Amino acid sequence: MKLTMRLGERSYDIIVKAGGLGRVGQLINLDRRALIVTDTGVPAEYARTVAAQCGKAKIVTVEQGEGSKSIAGFEQVLTAAMDAGLTRSDVVIAVGGGVVGDLAGFAAASYMRGVDFINCPTTTLAQIDSSIGGKVAVNLGHTKNLVGAFWQPKLVVADTAALDTLTPRHYANGLAEAVKAGLIADADLFELFETEDAREHIEEIITRSLVVKKNIVERDERENGPRAALNFGHTLGHAIESREGLGGVYHGECVALGMLPMIDDSKLRQRARAVYKKLGLPARVTYDGDKLMEYLRHDKKSGAEGVKTVRVRELGQHYFQFAGFDELRALAKEGVR
Amino acid sequence: MKLTMRLGERSYDIIVKAGGLGRVGQLINLDRRALIVTDTGVPAEYARTVAAQCGKAKIVTVEQGEGSKSIAGFEQVLTAAMDAGLTRSDVVIAVGGGVVGDLAGFAAASYMRGVDFINCPTTTLAQIDSSIGGKVAVNLGHTKNLVGAFWQPKLVVADTAALDTLTPRHYANGLAEAVKAGLIADADLFELFETEDAREHIEEIITRSLVVKKNIVERDERENGPRAALNFGHTLGHAIESREGLGGVYHGECVALGMLPMIDDSKLRQRARAVYKKLGLPARVTYDGDKLMEYLRHDKKSGAEGVKTVRVRELGQHYFQFAGFDELRALAKEGVR
Repeated sequence: MKLTMRLGERSYDIIVKAGGLGRVGQLINLDRRALIVTDTGVPAEYARTVAAQCGKAKIVTVEQGEGSKSIAGFEQVLTAAMDAGLTRSDVVIAVGGGVVGDLAGFAAASYMRGVDFINCPTTTLAQIDSSIGGKVAVNLGHTKNLVGAFWQPKLVVADTAALDTLTPRHYANGLAEAVKAGLIADADLFELFETEDAREHIEEIITRSLVVKKNIVERDERENGPRAALNFGHTLGHAIESREGLGGVYHGECVALGMLPMIDDSKLRQRARAVYKKLGLPARVTYDGDKLMEYLRHDKKSGAEGVKTVRVRELGQHYFQFAGFDELRALAKEGVR
Repeated sequence: MKLTMRLGERSYDIIVKAGGLGRVGQLINLDRRALIVTDTGVPAEYARTVAAQCGKAKIVTVEQGEGSKSIAGFEQVLTAAMDAGLTRSDVVIAVGGGVVGDLAGFAAASYMRGVDFINCPTTTLAQIDSSIGGKVAVNLGHTKNLVGAFWQPKLVVADTAALDTLTPRHYANGLAEAVKAGLIADADLFELFETEDAREHIEEIITRSLVVKKNIVERDERENGPRAALNFGHTLGHAIESREGLGGVYHGECVALGMLPMIDDSKLRQRARAVYKKLGLPARVTYDGDKLMEYLRHDKKSGAEGVKTVRVRELGQHYFQFAGFDELRALAKEGVR
């Protein structure tokens, strides 16, 4: 399956295909120096498979987990690029999940003020969501994605065969972003989760989720307006993620929980919760109101008075609504019952 | 004097005016949070003058010198921005020389994936050259500007009164970039240095230099072609700068030395050398050929075989010519006699 993200001179192809990791060099010129970024949780043969297709490759392996998505991790990758002698015409390639993609992407955006970036996502989360759209970043302290850039890849290759090595929890984690895509823009995708087995339809799930994201990003690359829809569930989700320490509860799990209060209709909320249970995602959480408020006031999407939230009233459709901090606190409390 | 850098939606004004620091708030909305970045070598009242015009300002003062233009300095500024509660609609303001501008600019480019940046250059080097054009960066190890972005400011205010506190050596350092502008594109500007006292004509020198740079940047914002002309003298200049330890010999001094071998005509080279002496810039240097080669092979502008150099055959005109590494070595040796 091939999709094209259409962003003028920054357009690129997205390939969803079992075995795709072995074919990257057929899709783009790899006859140059490449820095391949991966982490200790990704089977090492994935990076080696890509390296074998490059003119001259160096692999840098960061520690698995959110801790690597830091300024220190950024410096580690940049130093590896310098040591590998990367020039402006060379390439940085991410082989791994969202952490690796975000970290490698920001390094590619910044090294020599920007070199080519190829993303080979190997987790459901990265294949469904984070590998496309060009948002790259690292965390600062406990604040997620505070430091980064908009830097589109030149190619995305999602090898669905790589998903087979994920733990069930990691596998489900990424599906939360596909449930999100269904809720905000694709009712049929949501219903697929209700009626079918997700693993048996994973290529369709990934592709449909990417189509939802692609259509939104093409209209608003730098998140000045409609792109904020993709943040459905993320305001409260990030608050949970921050509270638990980055990486304690997985990103998709937090988003799943964060979406519930933003679904207006209680019946639809119950349907979402049933899907979560079927997939193995958490469906209940309690909020500490004071801590929540403190986090939200520092969130990068917050204004002085509150936040523009994304809501779902009807399956497959979303709207925006401003919510003051006190209203959010009440929503968080009520919406999860 | 007002110039406008015309880059479509990224256009901005450049104000060259004695007392400009006290009028920034009349030129752009400062009724918001601002992080003001300055260094220990800049009179503290400059930053305070700007802070007094902001809705809510925090000043972060880094150590003077190239050492602050590092990943650690970048993290320091970003953390200050976070602690000050800067949101996407707030602003980072540089008040200082090239180090402060490059560091603050890269932080502004990266904080929340990009916030507004205002540059208030207070040195000749920054007013004449580095404050406009949008190239921001920090060093990595001994390699200058390896990590950065293209991030245009929203406004540049060059307060010529601030130059009065510079040491004579710092003052002359920045003039080297104005001599460069004359050599590559403005014969009259070069001749002004031969016939007049530079300090008495500083506003004209700054403005003419900015016009040269502006005309080139407007044609090639991201340095895909003609913008490389601004690197005249910088290939060998950076090599000297790296050899001496960043900051040991000042940037402009290195550029002055690096231009000499790239002037084809020996008479014009003598004229340049006479101008350097008049201004207090160094006019002689010896190169260690082996170390020079090693540096050049790792330079970010180098290809596998050599470098595209900028040459001046006739005053006020430049051309590009590829030079192999051995040829550069010979040039460096001969051109400085």
